[in-house]
Amino acid sequence: MNGGTDIDRLIDLMSKLPGLGPRSARRAVLHLVRKRALALQPLVQAMTTVAETARECLTCGNIGVTSICDICTDPQRVTGELCVVEDVSDLWAMERAAVFKGQYQVLGGTLSALDAIGPEDLHIPRLVDRVRTEEISEVILALNATIDGQTTAHYIADQLDGQVRLTSLARGVPIGGELDYLDEGTISAALRARSTL
Amino acid sequence: MNGGTDIDRLIDLMSKLPGLGPRSARRAVLHLVRKRALALQPLVQAMTTVAETARECLTCGNIGVTSICDICTDPQRVTGELCVVEDVSDLWAMERAAVFKGQYQVLGGTLSALDAIGPEDLHIPRLVDRVRTEEISEVILALNATIDGQTTAHYIADQLDGQVRLTSLARGVPIGGELDYLDEGTISAALRARSTL
Repeated sequence: MNGGTDIDRLIDLMSKLPGLGPRSARRAVLHLVRKRALALQPLVQAMTTVAETARECLTCGNIGVTSICDICTDPQRVTGELCVVEDVSDLWAMERAAVFKGQYQVLGGTLSALDAIGPEDLHIPRLVDRVRTEEISEVILALNATIDGQTTAHYIADQLDGQVRLTSLARGVPIGGELDYLDEGTISAALRARSTL
Repeated sequence: MNGGTDIDRLIDLMSKLPGLGPRSARRAVLHLVRKRALALQPLVQAMTTVAETARECLTCGNIGVTSICDICTDPQRVTGELCVVEDVSDLWAMERAAVFKGQYQVLGGTLSALDAIGPEDLHIPRLVDRVRTEEISEVILALNATIDGQTTAHYIADQLDGQVRLTSLARGVPIGGELDYLDEGTISAALRARSTL
């Protein structure tokens, strides 16, 4: 009865997006219907464009509008440093931090026995290949500090052992973090990796 | 650097939807780009259809695909009971509860001195008119239990005083609610309106 099947169908599709549930989908759709010219039509336009233009970078796996992405083709970027991330969203997060000036390899997930995801389901062979063929001096493993992320990091470390300098992101108290809200693992890692003032 | 301006623009538009922020918009857009055939194209299609067909019911203010909505034209529904709600989303919430069998009047908001919203900005004149011209025996004020909602309820009660039976939703402990998590106002209202077992 949510005002016709067309609207119900849109709510249903919206509610399947990550981060949205039925309630937020209803709110979003009502907003879109009310702001048809200002919100709905530009959104349809932008989605149509993205549906036509978006593609995965053949080198690193980033999502962009060209077959080789802006980062891989940028002559300003250092070519010897390769940052390995699980997902495109992690690559974007690294870029927002604007501190890494090298290039990336997106894995497309993590190894997971539970979900039957093995090395060949990820871009690990491509990473190994790049390390062999490109002049890479350092591989930075920027994987999530989760069980699956760390399992994957260990597997990659095994594969690349001795071929290149391997590093990973530091573990510690996040900026603005309060000890009381941190888990014991983080506090213990931060203590072990403590630095001199 | 989020992979091209087209994608950035889509993320920007998505992040303006209620309930979505920049982070959830990025996640949703990545999901859409990956599931182009399964998620993005059906969504574009559904949005295009809704952009063409959705309209506000001329009688009650519900959003549907016809100029008079399904509820207003449904011969099964009781015509003498009018439920007044702030917003279309509240009407949909009432319909999900599937207990009210009468008709609705959507106000389109609440009176608000702060936002300079007066009675003429809402569908209050239409409500008063319907009570005068239709055979309404009861007006149920199903407005939110907020300051603005209650101010609006009082204003409507003044306008309709003596013309019709006026009721409002009961205040009390919500189903599944725990006293420890409820505010004092609700507990006090629930105690005052206590019922005999």
